[in-house]
Amino acid sequence: MRQTTGWAVNEPGAALAPWAFPRRDLREDDVAVRIEYTGICGSDLHAVRHGDAAAMPLVPGHEMTGTVTTVGTAVTGFKAGDRVAVGNVVDSCGTCPACVEHRENWCFAYPTVTYGGIDRVDGTLTQGGFSSEYVAREAFVYHLPPGLDPAGAAPLLCAGATMFGPLRHWQAGPGKTVGIVGIGGLGHLGVKFAHALGAHVIAFTTSAAKAAEALELGADETILSTDSAHLDAAKWRCDLILDTVGVPHDINGYLRALKLDGTLCTLGIPPEDWRVEPTSLLYGAKRLTGGSGEGTRLVRDMLDFSAKHSITAQIELVPATAINTALDRLERGDVRYRFVVDMT
Amino acid sequence: MRQTTGWAVNEPGAALAPWAFPRRDLREDDVAVRIEYTGICGSDLHAVRHGDAAAMPLVPGHEMTGTVTTVGTAVTGFKAGDRVAVGNVVDSCGTCPACVEHRENWCFAYPTVTYGGIDRVDGTLTQGGFSSEYVAREAFVYHLPPGLDPAGAAPLLCAGATMFGPLRHWQAGPGKTVGIVGIGGLGHLGVKFAHALGAHVIAFTTSAAKAAEALELGADETILSTDSAHLDAAKWRCDLILDTVGVPHDINGYLRALKLDGTLCTLGIPPEDWRVEPTSLLYGAKRLTGGSGEGTRLVRDMLDFSAKHSITAQIELVPATAINTALDRLERGDVRYRFVVDMT
Repeated sequence: MRQTTGWAVNEPGAALAPWAFPRRDLREDDVAVRIEYTGICGSDLHAVRHGDAAAMPLVPGHEMTGTVTTVGTAVTGFKAGDRVAVGNVVDSCGTCPACVEHRENWCFAYPTVTYGGIDRVDGTLTQGGFSSEYVAREAFVYHLPPGLDPAGAAPLLCAGATMFGPLRHWQAGPGKTVGIVGIGGLGHLGVKFAHALGAHVIAFTTSAAKAAEALELGADETILSTDSAHLDAAKWRCDLILDTVGVPHDINGYLRALKLDGTLCTLGIPPEDWRVEPTSLLYGAKRLTGGSGEGTRLVRDMLDFSAKHSITAQIELVPATAINTALDRLERGDVRYRFVVDMT
Repeated sequence: MRQTTGWAVNEPGAALAPWAFPRRDLREDDVAVRIEYTGICGSDLHAVRHGDAAAMPLVPGHEMTGTVTTVGTAVTGFKAGDRVAVGNVVDSCGTCPACVEHRENWCFAYPTVTYGGIDRVDGTLTQGGFSSEYVAREAFVYHLPPGLDPAGAAPLLCAGATMFGPLRHWQAGPGKTVGIVGIGGLGHLGVKFAHALGAHVIAFTTSAAKAAEALELGADETILSTDSAHLDAAKWRCDLILDTVGVPHDINGYLRALKLDGTLCTLGIPPEDWRVEPTSLLYGAKRLTGGSGEGTRLVRDMLDFSAKHSITAQIELVPATAINTALDRLERGDVRYRFVVDMT
């Protein structure tokens, strides 16, 4: 076994604390990665504050970039020294319709997630990226394209893929109007991607300050969603709206802001059911859908696109010793727009 | 003005009573239709029981077949003696994106509905098809294809279009699995259309008796939706599910019964919001949408398809004097599957 050091939560709500734990010895298709940068995602905060005590100690973190140190005997796509990234899924059944399409995040047998998942070979609990090293199957490791800053690229692995996936799927591009609701860790990347894809971008935010920032990120216009008249004026305007807000809120105004056959894609996961007015859905054959992460095909596409258009997350880089302060600040929404932890 | 006799509700909840009222003199693009058969839709029942008192007396009815008696001076597509049909929309703005695509039921300026609507020329209240004659713009009158029984065809104009529209839009056909939830006025036509389109059809019903009937209508299999294990076993199976149930019910089991990227289309309009679990929506990028009626392009397509495949509604034909008894029985769900009133 390979000795690793990481930052673990030992009981729900506790601060992360240093922890030494073993990683598996390399299987023939494994890649070992020295982790350099790991983004802090909202789901990390949720796992630390409200995770399952039975699955602790737990090392969170699933947006990582780093360098390959060694590879298994059957690995053909990576060698020591390669700059790589690992995201929120590290294995899946490989045979279900989702896996066959390389959309392993929707594996019908449930994917093995990067931390808090159950390894498909030995049944152990997976431990995440706030650690010195990660070991993953080659198929779930990505080459980091040259030119992408590895710190700013780390959040692309979850936040970036989550936003880019539905933009690609619903064909955001020239002639299309895309709304982005919530200008935070997810939303700011949504604005950058939608703009780079050539769409007309409307940023919906509750904050006048963030509205101004959204324009700098690439939005063509902004709508204060707290102003109901302003929101009503957006009726029938958007082909696609990506709603990144993770707390309960009314989505019916966004359904009305869609064009005929338009799509509202929810990417935040609030703790309550969505409440959908039947008429706001049916009048115009609007569509409500959701997303969370993406599979390996889309993540590769997203990384290539990001490199081509020089897109990385706007981050605040913090040392590993500041990880708990960063979690506290994320809980208050005090970050522009994503924390990345320097694990070196 | 043209004197017409009809069946009107005079106050919410009252029985329909005979009423003599004027129809407009023909405008140049108008067609006058002697009504022969009019279907009773759930929305008629709602209008009679819970309609707006300020808009009464009101003659309901929006699924009509009949014969042209006379036409306006500029009408080119119809002549006296033509067998025709009129549905739930009789005018629209004609210029918005929905109207340009001949999806006038979603007219951004709201379509003129067949009864209880406001005429776009003279501002009068429209009166519906439980009457001796209807006058409508040529563009909203349909030729009834030869071979379609005019009584059984009447419900196609609303119920049929409502079901056929999403089946066409989401490309139901060979290799696709389509679920139909609720085997009633809408659902039984959904089963017939989906079967004729070549899809594998699953009927979801709460009634063992209706399950047996669904097989006769063309379903390939049935699932008792009251049996949660039975419903759970349908997970990941359907490309498209059309939910016709108009009373509040849990739709999350149907979302889980969808394949990756599958679509749940709600066609009933319950009086409460849909409650959607974020995870049942996002896991597999499921889509929730809705529909109600269709525009002229799709209605023509549906009538042609119905004639080609000999599809009409399974109806109980009642005389006009039995219209109130029929409404009472519809309220109790006591009809297989649609009442049609003989207006001759």
